[in-house]
Amino acid sequence: MNSIQLVQQIESKGSFLCVGLDSDPRLIPSNFQKESDPIFAFNKAVIDATEKYAVAYKPNIAFYEALGPKGWESLQKTMDYIPQHVFTIADAKRGDIGNTALKYAQTFFEPVSSGFNFDSITVAPYMGEDSVTPFLSFEDKWVILLALTSNQGSQDFQLLRDENNIPLYENVMRKSMEWGGADQLMFVIGATRTEYLKHVRQIAPNHFFLVPGVGAQGGSLEDVAKHAMNSKVGLLVNSSRGILYAGDDTSVSAAREAKKMKDEMSTYLDQYWIK
Amino acid sequence: MNSIQLVQQIESKGSFLCVGLDSDPRLIPSNFQKESDPIFAFNKAVIDATEKYAVAYKPNIAFYEALGPKGWESLQKTMDYIPQHVFTIADAKRGDIGNTALKYAQTFFEPVSSGFNFDSITVAPYMGEDSVTPFLSFEDKWVILLALTSNQGSQDFQLLRDENNIPLYENVMRKSMEWGGADQLMFVIGATRTEYLKHVRQIAPNHFFLVPGVGAQGGSLEDVAKHAMNSKVGLLVNSSRGILYAGDDTSVSAAREAKKMKDEMSTYLDQYWIK
Repeated sequence: MNSIQLVQQIESKGSFLCVGLDSDPRLIPSNFQKESDPIFAFNKAVIDATEKYAVAYKPNIAFYEALGPKGWESLQKTMDYIPQHVFTIADAKRGDIGNTALKYAQTFFEPVSSGFNFDSITVAPYMGEDSVTPFLSFEDKWVILLALTSNQGSQDFQLLRDENNIPLYENVMRKSMEWGGADQLMFVIGATRTEYLKHVRQIAPNHFFLVPGVGAQGGSLEDVAKHAMNSKVGLLVNSSRGILYAGDDTSVSAAREAKKMKDEMSTYLDQYWIK
Repeated sequence: MNSIQLVQQIESKGSFLCVGLDSDPRLIPSNFQKESDPIFAFNKAVIDATEKYAVAYKPNIAFYEALGPKGWESLQKTMDYIPQHVFTIADAKRGDIGNTALKYAQTFFEPVSSGFNFDSITVAPYMGEDSVTPFLSFEDKWVILLALTSNQGSQDFQLLRDENNIPLYENVMRKSMEWGGADQLMFVIGATRTEYLKHVRQIAPNHFFLVPGVGAQGGSLEDVAKHAMNSKVGLLVNSSRGILYAGDDTSVSAAREAKKMKDEMSTYLDQYWIK
């Protein structure tokens, strides 16, 4: 999917919601447990309930991997079920070099290899250029690079300042923008660090941000919209548990929570989006 | 496996060789292609040929993932085939937080989840403490944290110096040593950066290093042994392609190359190992 198609979808749905599919066998309601593939049955219910409100789905690969080969089958069925026009993110946080990175890219981007056809993958930057560029050689596929994450541990290394007083996350953003343009590179920017939102938007005025940390982790959706929206919206705000596990009747509760976020997002699009 | 068992194995085999199982369907000799599971058949031949000379096997997870569910089955069979006393490394370079990290840990450490029972996993440090500590809660399981890698791109971020002139890889090592001791935390230290070997050993005198980059990438085995061996040896030196794809008759060529490395390692153990 290219950025024009993504922005069109955001505009037509009035939403920049990404639903994180962190589907956990121990947390899904009991009525799915009796299905032959409980995880897929649950994801199907979530997708049916939220498809009107969400522009992206983000399976958290750890949750599928942990189930062994049958987890990969649940993921495959889920991917086949997500409508073509919706953006898909393999939240895999991979990061390795050359030939190995290419294998990871093939896993998630090339249906002929593994069966998957994701639009994007999250990537960790620690190993540098040759761990990122192999993912950038696929047309209309995206790298979503970790920059400033929403967790407590982000302060350990991401905020370390170099000799020129530049924090690591800024070095990661500036350097990686030499490897890929705004049409194939996004950044993970946590919503919990409101004080940095304006700054990261200055660093990368044209790039999309994938934003976790709104809701349970304490980030404010309005702050994100106000400080980090750009002329292409440039935001995908993720919610996982807040939508997946909001009630026992998934069809009702997931739709209700996704609609609530979408309605708030529509307001902010009216208010802050300057095309 | 604990460090005593690992050191005992190194001593009894006279080797600190790790064989990287980067098993690629397009590179394995044609006689394996007719098997029902070519990747497993190839790995089995490699393990049979090298078991006497190697103290660790390191499947590169990307190569199995890229094949979809059947790749995970080949990996499962491979893991079941590796003798219990040999150290195993899931080269997965995972890095995510809390609950997600725990899922990755369960994937590779807990047979009841996915079927795997690896001794260790490679982990990327970018997200900080809460992305590493979940892996450290498993008894006799190890985190092998990326510190100074052997690739060209390692210079992009790992060598960035902070306000106190400390490079990022050193910050990663020092900080992470507060999270786990030398009995459950190792570091990836590339052999290509000979000039740093003494320094990293000073930073972490007691920890094991997993060392890629010897051979094809240009690192010197003798330099690694000379500058980075400690009282517990403290080294696992990896070779992948140099052993896997050394000839068409895998049983002969893999054994020959592994023995060559083992013989060299035995010499260095005699020369540089001060117990």
